[in-house]
Amino acid sequence: MIIQTLKGFRDFLPQEARKRQYVINTLKSVFESYGFEPLETPALEYEEILTGKYGEEGDKLMYRFTDNGGRRVAMRYDQTVPLARVVAQYGSVNSPQGQPILPLPFKRYQIQNVWRADNTQKGRFREFLQCDIDTVGSESPTADAEIVASVNASFEKLGFKDFMIQINDRSLFGDLPPQAILIIDKLEKQGKEQVEQELVEKGFAKNLIDDLVSKEQPASIVTIMHQAKSMGVADERLIFNPSLARGLDYYTGMIIEVTIANYPVGSVGGGGRYDKLIGMFAKQDYPAVGFAFGFDRVLEAMNEQNLFPPSLTNGTRVLVSIFNAELERDSIAVSSQLRANDINTELWLDRDVKMERQLKYADQKGIPYVIVLGPEEKEKNVVTLKDMKTRKQKLVTLEEAIATLSN
Amino acid sequence: MIIQTLKGFRDFLPQEARKRQYVINTLKSVFESYGFEPLETPALEYEEILTGKYGEEGDKLMYRFTDNGGRRVAMRYDQTVPLARVVAQYGSVNSPQGQPILPLPFKRYQIQNVWRADNTQKGRFREFLQCDIDTVGSESPTADAEIVASVNASFEKLGFKDFMIQINDRSLFGDLPPQAILIIDKLEKQGKEQVEQELVEKGFAKNLIDDLVSKEQPASIVTIMHQAKSMGVADERLIFNPSLARGLDYYTGMIIEVTIANYPVGSVGGGGRYDKLIGMFAKQDYPAVGFAFGFDRVLEAMNEQNLFPPSLTNGTRVLVSIFNAELERDSIAVSSQLRANDINTELWLDRDVKMERQLKYADQKGIPYVIVLGPEEKEKNVVTLKDMKTRKQKLVTLEEAIATLSN
Repeated sequence: MIIQTLKGFRDFLPQEARKRQYVINTLKSVFESYGFEPLETPALEYEEILTGKYGEEGDKLMYRFTDNGGRRVAMRYDQTVPLARVVAQYGSVNSPQGQPILPLPFKRYQIQNVWRADNTQKGRFREFLQCDIDTVGSESPTADAEIVASVNASFEKLGFKDFMIQINDRSLFGDLPPQAILIIDKLEKQGKEQVEQELVEKGFAKNLIDDLVSKEQPASIVTIMHQAKSMGVADERLIFNPSLARGLDYYTGMIIEVTIANYPVGSVGGGGRYDKLIGMFAKQDYPAVGFAFGFDRVLEAMNEQNLFPPSLTNGTRVLVSIFNAELERDSIAVSSQLRANDINTELWLDRDVKMERQLKYADQKGIPYVIVLGPEEKEKNVVTLKDMKTRKQKLVTLEEAIATLSN
Repeated sequence: MIIQTLKGFRDFLPQEARKRQYVINTLKSVFESYGFEPLETPALEYEEILTGKYGEEGDKLMYRFTDNGGRRVAMRYDQTVPLARVVAQYGSVNSPQGQPILPLPFKRYQIQNVWRADNTQKGRFREFLQCDIDTVGSESPTADAEIVASVNASFEKLGFKDFMIQINDRSLFGDLPPQAILIIDKLEKQGKEQVEQELVEKGFAKNLIDDLVSKEQPASIVTIMHQAKSMGVADERLIFNPSLARGLDYYTGMIIEVTIANYPVGSVGGGGRYDKLIGMFAKQDYPAVGFAFGFDRVLEAMNEQNLFPPSLTNGTRVLVSIFNAELERDSIAVSSQLRANDINTELWLDRDVKMERQLKYADQKGIPYVIVLGPEEKEKNVVTLKDMKTRKQKLVTLEEAIATLSN
C-alpha cells in the first residue's frame, strides 16, 4: 500500500491548520462586520450545473464521474456557480410563513475547498480553499464600493501594510472578443512587448493596449472609487488601471485585483461585477458583484512577512506533568482547575515517565509552560511553574500560576 | 438544466450555516482546552488506502472513481482511516532540525465532511460533517478517561442538561466473532427478544446477552470511570453497560456511546480504543482512543431543546438605511463608525428606495435594529434608532446608538 497523499492534495498538520484557521476567522469577522452571511454548498453537484461555465479549460480540469446511481456528478470547481445555482433555486421561493427564503440583496460569504486537476508543476494544488464574498441583487455602485471596502478591511485586518487594489471597468474593452481580453490579461506577467506580439499574431490591432492606457476613468469607476474612499479605503491603495482585464469572461462592469508589495508571485485575489451569470440558471437576471481571496497566496505572503501572531505556534498554554502514579490525581485536579479558568491545558497521560521526557515533549510541541507537582509541592500546597523559553522555574500557588498563564 | 442539489446533499443557507458554525466553534474551544490540535486531510485519497477498512458495506457506499490521470481515488469516508494514514506517514519522520514532526501522544481534532452513498430514505445524508477527537500514542487509561471527560465537557458546553455516557470494554466479549457483536449492537434499537432470535438463527448461543449483562465491571473500566469522574464527569452521567457493543470491529478496549434524554432518534456520538488499526498502515502498532460526534443529530437535538442562543438568528446587529441620494454619504459615514466600534453593520445599498421597503428587508432578515438618517436627524446631529422587535424608535446621538448596539 502507498502511504501518501495524491499529487496536489495536502495534509495540514496542527501548526499549519492553526494558521489557516486564523486567516479564516479573521476574514469571517470582517465579512460579518459588513453584513455578509455564511453559505455552504455541496462538494458534488449535477455535472450539467458546472460544465460549460468555466470555458474549455474548466471542463478539462473538473473532477467528474458517474456515481453509484448512474448520475453524472462533478466536484465543486469554484463557489460562484454554486452561488448562482442557489440564487436560481431559492431566489423566488417563500417560506411557509410567506417570507422570502433569500431576501435580496443576498450578501453571502463562502469558505470551502474546490478541486481542479491542474498541472501541479506550476505550484498549483488540486484541492484548495476558496474564500468568496458576493452581493446578489443590487445594481448600485455602492454594492461595488462595499466589496472594495470589505476587501481593503480584510487585508488591513490580516496585517498587510503595503497592498494595492487595482480597479477597472470591463466596459472600457467595448466589444473586444474574450480571446483578446485573455491576451491582455497577461500584461502584468509577460510585459507589453510580448502581449502586443501575441495580439498581432492572433489578428488583433497592435495598439489595443496603448488605446486602453490612454482612456479616462469611466463615470462608474469615479463613483465607486469615491464611495470606497468614503468607506475608509486610503487614496493610495485604490488605483485605476485601464489595462486591467481579469481572465474570466463573465464580468460585465467593475473588475478589481489585489497585489501585495514584495510578494511577486501574483495577485492575491480578484473579482468584479457579473450581472448576467446567474441568469444562465434562473428565469431572470440577478445583478451581482463579488471577490475571491487567493487563500494559499495570502497565507504564503503572511508567512513571508511574519504577520501571524507568535501565540499561534501552539494552541496549548501549559502541560501539567505527572510526577508519579501516586500524585497523578493531584495533577488531574490542577488541570481541571486551569481549564475552569479558560486556560488551554494538556495533561500528561502516562504514569511513571521520567520528567525529562515530559519536558522534552513540551519543547517539541512548543508548549510555553510546564507545571510540576511533586511531593514537596504537594506538602507546601504550591506547584512548580516552568517557563520553557527562559528555562526558569519557581514555586507558586495555583492562583499565581493561573494569573501568569492567563496573560 | 435541473436546478437542484443531488439527493442526500444539502445547501446550508445563512441561518442554518450560523448554527453549524456555533456548534463547531463550541466544540473546538472544548477540544483546545484539553490540548487537542486541528488536523485537515484531503477529500480524495488513493482508493486502496480506504477500501477494506469499513467492511463490505463501506466499500459499497464509498464514492470512488478513476481520475484524469488514471489513478483510482476515493472520497473521504470517515476521519479515522485518514488519521491512521497520517500517523503512518509522519509518525517516525523528523524535521530538518531533528525534531519529530508528530510528537507522541498526538492529540488531534478533525472537523470535515465525509461522503457515503447511503440510502437517503433512512433520513441519512450522503454528505455530512464529522467531528472527531483522538489521542494516538498512549496506552494509559488516563487517555481513555480524558476522551470521556472531553466528550462530557462538550455536551455540557453545548447546553445539554440531561445526557448519558454509556461505557463498556470490548474485552467482555471475549473471542465472540464480529458477526455476533454486530447483532448484539442492535439491542437498544430492536429489543432483547428480537436480538436473541437473530443470534439463534445465525448459530450463536441464545443466552449471550444474559451472560454479558451479568458481568461485573472489568478493572480497566473501574479505573477509567474513576479518573473521568476526577476530571469532572458527574457520577450519574457515566454508566457501565456490559451489553454496549458498538458496530465497528476495530475496537480493542473501552467503548462509549452518548445518548440524550428526550432525543429518541439514537446515540449522538460514540467511540473507543482501537490499538491495532493504525498498525494496518504503519510498520508498528500505535495505541489510540477517540470519539466521533454525530453532528447532524447534535444539531437536531439542540434545535428541539432550544439550546441555540437567540442572538444567533442573525449575525448582523443593525441596518443603516439610506434616506435619499443626497444623504447617502452620511449613512456611509455612520456605518463606518459603527464597524469601527465592532458592531456588525449592514448598509442599505440602493438610493431612492422607500424606507418602508428597507424596514421590511430588516424584518425579513431578522436584523434587530435600523438606523435612519434624514434631513431632520442631520440638522440635529443625531440618528433615529428603531428597535424592530418593539417597533419603538427614538432620536439618539451616534454615541448613544453605539452604546445600545454594543449590548
